[in-house]
Amino acid sequence: MNSEKIDAVVIEDSENRRSKNLRYLSGMHSDALIVIFAEGNTVLVPWDMILAEKTATADKIIAYGEFERNPVKAISSICRDNLLTGRIELLSQTPYLMFSEIEDEMHGFEIVCRADGASEKLMDMRAIKDQAEIELYKRAGKMTDKLIDTIENGIKDDSIKTEIDAAMLIEAESRRLGAEGTSFETLAAGPSRSWGIHCIPAYSSGPIGGLNENGGGGLSIIDCGLNVDGYATDITITICRGELTDKQNQMVELVSRAHSIAAKAGKISQVSAKAVASAVDEIFAAEGWTMPHSLGHGIGLDVHESPLLKNHKLYDKPILPGMTFTIEPGLYDPEAGGVRLENDYLMTEHGAEPLTSSRILRLP
Amino acid sequence: MNSEKIDAVVIEDSENRRSKNLRYLSGMHSDALIVIFAEGNTVLVPWDMILAEKTATADKIIAYGEFERNPVKAISSICRDNLLTGRIELLSQTPYLMFSEIEDEMHGFEIVCRADGASEKLMDMRAIKDQAEIELYKRAGKMTDKLIDTIENGIKDDSIKTEIDAAMLIEAESRRLGAEGTSFETLAAGPSRSWGIHCIPAYSSGPIGGLNENGGGGLSIIDCGLNVDGYATDITITICRGELTDKQNQMVELVSRAHSIAAKAGKISQVSAKAVASAVDEIFAAEGWTMPHSLGHGIGLDVHESPLLKNHKLYDKPILPGMTFTIEPGLYDPEAGGVRLENDYLMTEHGAEPLTSSRILRLP
Repeated sequence: MNSEKIDAVVIEDSENRRSKNLRYLSGMHSDALIVIFAEGNTVLVPWDMILAEKTATADKIIAYGEFERNPVKAISSICRDNLLTGRIELLSQTPYLMFSEIEDEMHGFEIVCRADGASEKLMDMRAIKDQAEIELYKRAGKMTDKLIDTIENGIKDDSIKTEIDAAMLIEAESRRLGAEGTSFETLAAGPSRSWGIHCIPAYSSGPIGGLNENGGGGLSIIDCGLNVDGYATDITITICRGELTDKQNQMVELVSRAHSIAAKAGKISQVSAKAVASAVDEIFAAEGWTMPHSLGHGIGLDVHESPLLKNHKLYDKPILPGMTFTIEPGLYDPEAGGVRLENDYLMTEHGAEPLTSSRILRLP
Repeated sequence: MNSEKIDAVVIEDSENRRSKNLRYLSGMHSDALIVIFAEGNTVLVPWDMILAEKTATADKIIAYGEFERNPVKAISSICRDNLLTGRIELLSQTPYLMFSEIEDEMHGFEIVCRADGASEKLMDMRAIKDQAEIELYKRAGKMTDKLIDTIENGIKDDSIKTEIDAAMLIEAESRRLGAEGTSFETLAAGPSRSWGIHCIPAYSSGPIGGLNENGGGGLSIIDCGLNVDGYATDITITICRGELTDKQNQMVELVSRAHSIAAKAGKISQVSAKAVASAVDEIFAAEGWTMPHSLGHGIGLDVHESPLLKNHKLYDKPILPGMTFTIEPGLYDPEAGGVRLENDYLMTEHGAEPLTSSRILRLP
């Protein structure tokens, strides 16, 4: 902040603008704003004062009520009360209208909002996990593997018959394993709707794990993860039931191949995220297929973080040691259904280390 | 749009910028942008093309992939391809940086982003439910009442022992009742943590519905709702177990009284939202209490919509016939716990009509 002559950075989290930077920097889960001064001291303005006093760390905590629960008033008052002048930086998610309001309210200050400023800095800081975070992720990976086993057993012993069964089992099991919960709403899609990248609704009362509606081979997808002390894991299992068509077999074979090649490409330290994604796109393109989403993404306090593994020049950057990320090739067809295989990895000096071991299940 | 000389309005929904306006206007659930031209025709740009073709309505559907999945490129191309010139309006949630990028990319266009423009218009349109939406809400209210009965029975017959039990029962029951799911993550807080306005985590493996840790009277809160064809209900039950302290009894009495007075105040047609909220604040203030949140909020495709029932001059506006909203007075104390009672209402020409019948349970 000093080198960029920024006098304060403001981080705000509210219902339509969630920012895990708040939890990263203060321990406060949500619904608060924090002002960080260049000297290093912080003021936290929480909606729930009792929660903040029990869980958050900040030099000063002032209830949002003191500012009529208005972020613009809070930011302006805190800066003025601390006799601040100069440059105030807002994170890149700040809405245009809020930026304008703050500019109007804070005459005499220079209000800054940049793509490559504090937001990017925080994103980069969060992308590279420290030792405590790495230990946490190793533990979270083991917990997630237990969850994967439980799902596989549930499919095999027929206790998972419907998408709800799968989702409910995952919710209950996540807490039994000691997680805060799931890291996002479980996506459970049976053969009739696994063509959706993210099925809607996330799970229904329909069947999962079985044959398709016409008694032919069925492809089902379960995409889920744990929230372990705030940090997300994210895996996908595909269940193949019965005799698959040639097209379905091709999809399974291509996704498996893409998954191993991507995981191996990760063994080359300093590999470019774009290069890995592009290798997978080529495998698919050679057989006339297109993957309608990115190959993977960073995981952390948010389920989707930096780095993004995408075949685009923006992502021609190395995956660095300490980064945790998913590899999740997937193919979708309105008739055949969908296949996706997703696992989590930690990049180390010696290449990508798998954190989870999800798989494509082939069942008779 | 014509009267304001707006040539196109752009609505965008993506992971960190959800906008139910997309579903309201196109039927597409999420992850798409839509351009609405003043002549009335629309172009939808979905991430999931298969889903869009199965569920959405638009004059033209173009895959996001055609624009490198970049909203700025998509907006610019579509406007130019339609030989548009003039004023393009972006909704008020648009980030400052995205606004700037679009301005840079779309030289020759005037880019508008206003608090009182299309966003407000859409918010006002969505606040007043049409006949089909009202029928839906009456059905959703009845489903929610069944859910409330199931929760009450679960507490009474001891099948709900932990917060997870409550949350899992609600998830499963919501689908059994034919809802798309719950309308938000169920908040289930036992006596040791019902002091949180919104407890974190939303539910844990801890006990609910019983005495407090010291064997004294316990206050538990369950806040949940159904998602019925996209529309949210939102209710809160408080469970009082055992002999309450004077303070706990006072909290229960005040919240009950505030809830009935607010529901009755709603009987006066054209009542001001601020006036109702202010009446409740006065009841609490007279006994030295402060409610740390608003009295209620509109419900619709979003759980939190217009109108807001808050004691602030901004909300000195009538609650109009056709509006659906919650009334949810609550009081919280770090030692005693929390009490909140929340129900849903439909404003009619003859006053507020209850949609749900949640309650404060007093159990021995």
